[in-house]
Amino acid sequence: MKMNFAITLCLIVFCGLSLAQDEDDATECSPCEPGLCDFLIGFGAMTEKLADSETRLKDTEKQIVELQNKERIKVIFSAAVGVGHKNIGPFNTDPTLIYRRVITNIGGAYSQSTGVFTAPVAGVYYFSFFYHAGGEHPVNLRLYKNNELIVDTSDHQSKEDGADNGGNAVSLQLTQGDRVYIRMAANTHVWGGDLPTTFTGYLVAQM
Amino acid sequence: MKMNFAITLCLIVFCGLSLAQDEDDATECSPCEPGLCDFLIGFGAMTEKLADSETRLKDTEKQIVELQNKERIKVIFSAAVGVGHKNIGPFNTDPTLIYRRVITNIGGAYSQSTGVFTAPVAGVYYFSFFYHAGGEHPVNLRLYKNNELIVDTSDHQSKEDGADNGGNAVSLQLTQGDRVYIRMAANTHVWGGDLPTTFTGYLVAQM
Amino acid sequence: MKMNFAITLCLIVFCGLSLAQDEDDATECSPCEPGLCDFLIGFGAMTEKLADSETRLKDTEKQIVELQNKERIKVIFSAAVGVGHKNIGPFNTDPTLIYRRVITNIGGAYSQSTGVFTAPVAGVYYFSFFYHAGGEHPVNLRLYKNNELIVDTSDHQSKEDGADNGGNAVSLQLTQGDRVYIRMAANTHVWGGDLPTTFTGYLVAQM
Repeated sequence: MKMNFAITLCLIVFCGLSLAQDEDDATECSPCEPGLCDFLIGFGAMTEKLADSETRLKDTEKQIVELQNKERIKVIFSAAVGVGHKNIGPFNTDPTLIYRRVITNIGGAYSQSTGVFTAPVAGVYYFSFFYHAGGEHPVNLRLYKNNELIVDTSDHQSKEDGADNGGNAVSLQLTQGDRVYIRMAANTHVWGGDLPTTFTGYLVAQM
Repeated sequence: MKMNFAITLCLIVFCGLSLAQDEDDATECSPCEPGLCDFLIGFGAMTEKLADSETRLKDTEKQIVELQNKERIKVIFSAAVGVGHKNIGPFNTDPTLIYRRVITNIGGAYSQSTGVFTAPVAGVYYFSFFYHAGGEHPVNLRLYKNNELIVDTSDHQSKEDGADNGGNAVSLQLTQGDRVYIRMAANTHVWGGDLPTTFTGYLVAQM
Repeated sequence: MKMNFAITLCLIVFCGLSLAQDEDDATECSPCEPGLCDFLIGFGAMTEKLADSETRLKDTEKQIVELQNKERIKVIFSAAVGVGHKNIGPFNTDPTLIYRRVITNIGGAYSQSTGVFTAPVAGVYYFSFFYHAGGEHPVNLRLYKNNELIVDTSDHQSKEDGADNGGNAVSLQLTQGDRVYIRMAANTHVWGGDLPTTFTGYLVAQM
């Protein structure tokens, strides 16, 4: 289309000149005088280059938005049981352990009322959990992904050792809406203080 | 402005031709011969498109620099107490525990001489710390953000159990200059070896 | 080059007109009629601007690809020993502990058959490992980078305490091909179950 326009323009502008110079010799109307037609071809090429640049720029802007969106999504939480200077458990059921003292909750994916983390975006997440407990009862904290038991940490009852410590960590590929939480096994306990028994998770990479 | 230029040019180029063909009929000087004026209007539109592309490209370049700067900032450290095959403590004060064996210190935010990590940029950071200790004294390591106690790990004295292990981890939203460090509570101790008692932290996401 | 072209074109187009109007006065052929030459100079400037934009756009696209490639590379694994309800060890050698139950292996850098993680790209990685073990034997798990011992976690034999727990974590700057793995020291053991004894690592930042 641009070339047609260039030739048309070439004919109009240049043939105008030719006819003015020699009215009888219309056949001398060359469609392309070197300088002018180079210019018109150059203009056509430039129009195409600009259109190409605009397309590439639009694509570039779209890709930047995608990168920025990925960069913008931040999902990180930490919480401690925080029920005071006492044990939680033992119970004869295996309740979800609710970490009531929220230390960090960027993205709001951890629920302080249920103890459940719900993945807001698909990706790979890292979770770590630690406990402190007295030795008079066993300990068993179990990390679940939805209804699947993934990893745990446990200790036996130990009359001679006043306290138990443990923890574990795992990375998990989650789809949006997957739930991750800690259950305390029946007949086990942990220490309920503000500081030692914690649950942390965060988005390592969107996928 | 471009249209004025186009009309001026149209008159100069095209009316020149008209006058050459028919010197008596200046009124035939139409300001816009279709082909030529389409060209001139096209040129004006192209000039505007190019200016628009240049503005968008400048903005795009700025956003890429922002993304690159975020990507470039890396803050990660790991250190172990590393004072040799002996206990550190107990003391009757609660000193900052200095991890003298620096394993990683990308960004240089951890000070080997003070044991303090100082956030070089605002963001959310993840910290983990682990200890090994003999059972003859209690253990209590406390992670602080500035002057605020965040999480800890501790164990009782236990004559029957030769050794204690523990650790904890937490994510913290920090502003630039916030300080994070571990204090060892009065009358407690940890093992001073190169390998088991460590402190690690890194930037998860700038904010 | 563009200015030469503009002047040439100016001469051809405009001098053509001049000669048509007054065949005897070739000296009136001014190389630059204001309107036309402004146009031609404007066209030359636009050509240069477009070429400049194209260069910058190309550079921008390259930088986006670099950012996307960094964003695309995800390296994360978690595995548990997972050999069933029994101890692993003690042995009179210090074998690499093979974590056979692979929970996550994004990027495929962890080998289920050797227990070795091999860095697929240069960068800083975070590793954590946790164990559970009965008290009847000591425990000593050692994290190596190639042949260098980096951190460990250990516990003594303890008849009175039925179980031991421990762990450690470290960040390591690795070059492509560096190997990270856990060795179990001679005469020590860990529990072989699916859930408590784990090894996790991931790429924190490419470098």
